[in-house]
Amino acid sequence: MPTPVKSVLPVVLLGCGGVGRYLLRHIVSCRPLHANQGVSIRVVGVADSSSLLVAEDVHSSGLDDALLTNLCAAKSAGSPLSSLLGQGKYQLFQNPEARSKVIDAATTLGRTTGLVLVDCSATYDTVSLMKDAVDHGCCIVLANKKPLTGAYEDFQKLVSNFRRIRFESTVGAGLPVIASVTRIIASGDPVSRIVGSLSGTLGYVMSELEDGKRFSEVVKTAKSLGYTEPDPRDDLGGMDVARKALILARLLGQQISMDNINVESLYPSELGPDKVSSKDFLESGLGHLDKGMEERVKAASSRGNVLRYVCEIESTGCQVGLKELPKDSALGRLRGSDNVVEIYSRCYESSPLVIQGAGAGNDTTAAGVLADIMDLQDLFQKTA
Amino acid sequence: MPTPVKSVLPVVLLGCGGVGRYLLRHIVSCRPLHANQGVSIRVVGVADSSSLLVAEDVHSSGLDDALLTNLCAAKSAGSPLSSLLGQGKYQLFQNPEARSKVIDAATTLGRTTGLVLVDCSATYDTVSLMKDAVDHGCCIVLANKKPLTGAYEDFQKLVSNFRRIRFESTVGAGLPVIASVTRIIASGDPVSRIVGSLSGTLGYVMSELEDGKRFSEVVKTAKSLGYTEPDPRDDLGGMDVARKALILARLLGQQISMDNINVESLYPSELGPDKVSSKDFLESGLGHLDKGMEERVKAASSRGNVLRYVCEIESTGCQVGLKELPKDSALGRLRGSDNVVEIYSRCYESSPLVIQGAGAGNDTTAAGVLADIMDLQDLFQKTA
Repeated sequence: MPTPVKSVLPVVLLGCGGVGRYLLRHIVSCRPLHANQGVSIRVVGVADSSSLLVAEDVHSSGLDDALLTNLCAAKSAGSPLSSLLGQGKYQLFQNPEARSKVIDAATTLGRTTGLVLVDCSATYDTVSLMKDAVDHGCCIVLANKKPLTGAYEDFQKLVSNFRRIRFESTVGAGLPVIASVTRIIASGDPVSRIVGSLSGTLGYVMSELEDGKRFSEVVKTAKSLGYTEPDPRDDLGGMDVARKALILARLLGQQISMDNINVESLYPSELGPDKVSSKDFLESGLGHLDKGMEERVKAASSRGNVLRYVCEIESTGCQVGLKELPKDSALGRLRGSDNVVEIYSRCYESSPLVIQGAGAGNDTTAAGVLADIMDLQDLFQKTA
Repeated sequence: MPTPVKSVLPVVLLGCGGVGRYLLRHIVSCRPLHANQGVSIRVVGVADSSSLLVAEDVHSSGLDDALLTNLCAAKSAGSPLSSLLGQGKYQLFQNPEARSKVIDAATTLGRTTGLVLVDCSATYDTVSLMKDAVDHGCCIVLANKKPLTGAYEDFQKLVSNFRRIRFESTVGAGLPVIASVTRIIASGDPVSRIVGSLSGTLGYVMSELEDGKRFSEVVKTAKSLGYTEPDPRDDLGGMDVARKALILARLLGQQISMDNINVESLYPSELGPDKVSSKDFLESGLGHLDKGMEERVKAASSRGNVLRYVCEIESTGCQVGLKELPKDSALGRLRGSDNVVEIYSRCYESSPLVIQGAGAGNDTTAAGVLADIMDLQDLFQKTA
């Protein structure tokens, strides 16, 4: 006997590149699993940076799975959403109309069936859309860090109904960091400190340096392995880690912004993108940093410690940068590109709660987003 | 401006010894925090093994915080619930009437305001009560492993509405193990294997043996530090770990029972409680095990490995016992009494998702129970 459908979750997805595309695939492939749990995810709209595909009748239908599968294939091949024209029952809108159509869906569904607006894009541009959606009673799920790391007022607005927002995949991809911190806070156990290595790239770099390799050599290898952004300075500058740290700090109730975080860059401003090309940085600039880094690694080692690029969130402030840590701590033991987070609280005082694992990748990030969507299902229960 | 109350959760607590007592304290001390989140936990009843205290009108009132605080003090001093007579507005029932009064509350509230039945006892006796409560639409939160580790049919019944049950604290106390596995499963990422060190006592024993100490000496020290049960054989036999393994295996969908788990005991049946007293076991029996254990530790070490007492849950079966593991794995590195769990899935295939931290203690266990209760709040939303 099939399980009766208990919850129907209408979803509009913003951003269907890497993570968004994997999310759609996971939604389609999980249909039987979710049906067993009485849950149905109805994808009513999908937007990329220029267009929106939306179901003909957002109240009752969704984009069908064949179309979603074709959409994933098209995006994977680098084609725009508009290339799908004529392949199924839907409406296609181009910007700027697309944006207003998302608002229409949010207005219509937000206060009736409910709507989950999922942001898998990588821009700040979705913030105003999501703030409007919150006003219309919609739920929000983000893999995109930027809306949560802009103005504090935007963060405050987005989390104003805390049960209607999830953002696990903004920190450590699918690793249950946000969910665990949220549980600890809800149980009245005050979190006093979070320390984490939240960049797979910098985790890899620091553990290779420990083995005596040269900084320039390690960064180049990391780039050739696809661990870094096209310009490795995007990783080495620490801003991505700082965004994750800011999200964690705000989750702990700190009313701070990026300006309040001390971020140590692993390259000096003279070698910044405004002064030196990416090619020159890799071919000559990087080599100048080897000696300084080698000295720091050796100094740490002489004290029985290792260097890690970490974020530290405490009540006194929030830092991102290199830190000497005991070799036998969870962070000190870290090898390769795994993320690791240590959470200290009353219950985890002398020995922290540690969460470790792969903290990047489209598949894992999309899995975290889907778990977040499923976690909202009680808000979408069908009334008998 | 105070936050409006969005969810009211009526709770009946079974078992108010260690964990239950801490839970009541946490509920009382978290009132302001939960009020800020728009949540109110109404404790309508508290039962110990012989009595039930219940609010005069379960529909509208709860036991007041002053009474709950006195109740915690009384239980802490070893007094029964009946010693509170005359201290507030409530009704007191003795067994067997107490049980039927819990059913009454479950019947009345289950289908109206809803009810969370919380089991912090340590007996099998609560199973039938909870199965009845499930039939009446109640939610269930357990720290008690026994109802989930008896007959498979009982487990199946209790989890039949999976959104209405939480049991985080049955495995690793407050560590987010069940919540994380549940998230991974919901995202369609199939969990292929779980390996864990889920006994703080045996974790301590095994890491001490690694340092060359004698088994008998380590067990006696563990006992003197309060790490073991009064009779250490209750830990050394592995049944407590086997119960946790069974809960994890059943969570993964395995329809198995305790009989299907291979459990290795660290003492032979000749030294069992039916043959040798606890005193004799400690004073003479234990020493006979030193040589065998020393040889196993040395053999593992000669292969660069360490011995750990672990549970292993795979599709092919479920084992509990000593296992040789690489020194540099998460389990191999474990020191002291922390619990650690490695979860393998498609997303965490080559490198597992690792969760580590304190896995015992009344405070931590009760915090996990409270987080579970709070996690049910969307089912208890007040209609506007």
